[in-house]
Amino acid sequence: MTVSSSHDEWMRRALLLAQLGSGRVSPNPMVGCVIVHDDTVIAEGWHSAYGELHAETDALRHLNGIATGATMYVTLEPCTHYGKQPPCIDAIIRSGVARVVVAMIDPNPLVSGQGIERLREAGIEVITDVLHDEAAYLNRRFLHWMRSGLPHVTLKLATSLDARAQMPPGQPRFITSAESRFHVHKLRACVDAVMIGIGTALYDNPELTVRLCPGRNPARVVIDSMCRLPTSTTLVATARETPTIIICSDKSDRDAREELRNQGVDVIVVPTREERTILTEDILRVLAERKITSVMAEGGPYLAARLLRDDVVDELHFHVAPVMIGSGPSWVFDTAFRRWMLREHRHVGQDIHMQYVRNR
Amino acid sequence: MTVSSSHDEWMRRALLLAQLGSGRVSPNPMVGCVIVHDDTVIAEGWHSAYGELHAETDALRHLNGIATGATMYVTLEPCTHYGKQPPCIDAIIRSGVARVVVAMIDPNPLVSGQGIERLREAGIEVITDVLHDEAAYLNRRFLHWMRSGLPHVTLKLATSLDARAQMPPGQPRFITSAESRFHVHKLRACVDAVMIGIGTALYDNPELTVRLCPGRNPARVVIDSMCRLPTSTTLVATARETPTIIICSDKSDRDAREELRNQGVDVIVVPTREERTILTEDILRVLAERKITSVMAEGGPYLAARLLRDDVVDELHFHVAPVMIGSGPSWVFDTAFRRWMLREHRHVGQDIHMQYVRNR
Repeated sequence: MTVSSSHDEWMRRALLLAQLGSGRVSPNPMVGCVIVHDDTVIAEGWHSAYGELHAETDALRHLNGIATGATMYVTLEPCTHYGKQPPCIDAIIRSGVARVVVAMIDPNPLVSGQGIERLREAGIEVITDVLHDEAAYLNRRFLHWMRSGLPHVTLKLATSLDARAQMPPGQPRFITSAESRFHVHKLRACVDAVMIGIGTALYDNPELTVRLCPGRNPARVVIDSMCRLPTSTTLVATARETPTIIICSDKSDRDAREELRNQGVDVIVVPTREERTILTEDILRVLAERKITSVMAEGGPYLAARLLRDDVVDELHFHVAPVMIGSGPSWVFDTAFRRWMLREHRHVGQDIHMQYVRNR
Repeated sequence: MTVSSSHDEWMRRALLLAQLGSGRVSPNPMVGCVIVHDDTVIAEGWHSAYGELHAETDALRHLNGIATGATMYVTLEPCTHYGKQPPCIDAIIRSGVARVVVAMIDPNPLVSGQGIERLREAGIEVITDVLHDEAAYLNRRFLHWMRSGLPHVTLKLATSLDARAQMPPGQPRFITSAESRFHVHKLRACVDAVMIGIGTALYDNPELTVRLCPGRNPARVVIDSMCRLPTSTTLVATARETPTIIICSDKSDRDAREELRNQGVDVIVVPTREERTILTEDILRVLAERKITSVMAEGGPYLAARLLRDDVVDELHFHVAPVMIGSGPSWVFDTAFRRWMLREHRHVGQDIHMQYVRNR
């Protein structure tokens, strides 16, 4: 095995470890760490939950902090600042590792490049950009939020072959298969929030929780400019168990807002601007202020069209069912011309799942 | 290797040989034949072109007609009747083979089961239904035509993610990639005819030939009820090289028809019925009368919607480009609720190709 291919192999393992934190570490990034000596793993660690040990200190803990002469593989540049945890850099330098291999520089302006500089100053060899693209993809939601200050937006669409979003009367309610819905729950467990329009909230009365697979529930966000969501809905009834956010315009009824707040709903009021009641940028801004780094839009062709038109969608997930519905509403509205990049496609039961990312 | 798995293996080879006749044997089926003795292939054959030797006699020819004690694998029941070639049954019986393994019974009422009966009467062991489904899929177009008396209909749609069929001004003309267009040419080489509406003929002035890959040109069919196709179009200009059929209503202009006929176009007049100018069933009927066993509809959302509405589409091919067009015409029209069966999906460059078949 060549040196660079063995670097790739250990880093791939560190990336797998990082994924164990999926859905649990936000607004932190997922980070994994492997410590190798004489071609053998001597310790592994990962950032397992927000507020818990960072990956590097988690791995070093198994070695009582001592890793003299070893090589540390870590999926993100080690931090240099105090957050919920003391900076990892000091622990790494103290450990005596000879070399640190890093997948990517931390985009956090409080870290960016300083961690690597500190390591080099301490006489530690540093190699960067090993499996950089894989690491950036793993933390794409975090990176987007860190760089833009706005949540990463995923749009999920369940569609028939003829771009319709609703089954005809007399047919099963869902267009897509149970396998696709299972996959949607897995996606939910990866994001900080799911978002729907008031139309979908009224029509479907959904739960928007993670039930078909293990994982923590994302916050539920309803775009409801006139604050029409009834307190009788499942979302409001479960607001004390799972964070529920309603974004409404300052023109909405004060009493309605108060009533929802009394039920435990987080009602956010945004200004009414221009001809539209609420601007997409205001929606994303208030979510970012709540430390929501990623959001998945799950419903309503109007919401989908608005997000596409305003070009804030970073990732698209289609679940295409093997059916032509033939009549009734389509989810297609006038938006804008945009090219996407195919990331993945596979069949999920008889449906096809297609994932696209936006190249900016 | 167990006996049944070795049957599968030899039959798989016979199916591969059968495919070598793709696009060349219609209106005959594709057939392949492998003759095995002592676990060794001693001869192979296939039906290579309409009017040429059948697979069985093609294989036996390499053995001077003698295959004493061998096993013959053939993808379709051997024929018992005189067509362009003498019946294969007699040659097989004369050859002295001990056993014939057949993938499927011939649906042709002139053969169906009689070939197998004749072999058994001659003391030859016969095993049937080995890789039946694979053989039926390979000859699905032939089988549909044989059973229904109408051509097998494939509908091909090139679409954006938002179900639009036309690029906006200022963008490249084609929605899909060069790789997808290459694949469409491969599909063309498999069918007896391609069919478009007059709108597409006027708008695109297409050639509809097989240029990007090897293969013979299908006949080109234009649904043109009022016989408006100008003699200046590429289709008419090349009608003497590649069969070109125009299907028009008996209400269309006689002089226009005559002018097209003078250019070598096969103008077929069908009766005008009810409120519609031409019925789909009349279109398919006249094509079947021309021994066209399969047709691929390649263009025009109106033609696509008509075929879907009338439920004559047997196979759907989508090429989905990684683009949202955002505005302009969609190919989606009101049709009917139908379920499809996913047969295959794969990426073709950045496009996704999805193939569905209709379960009847």
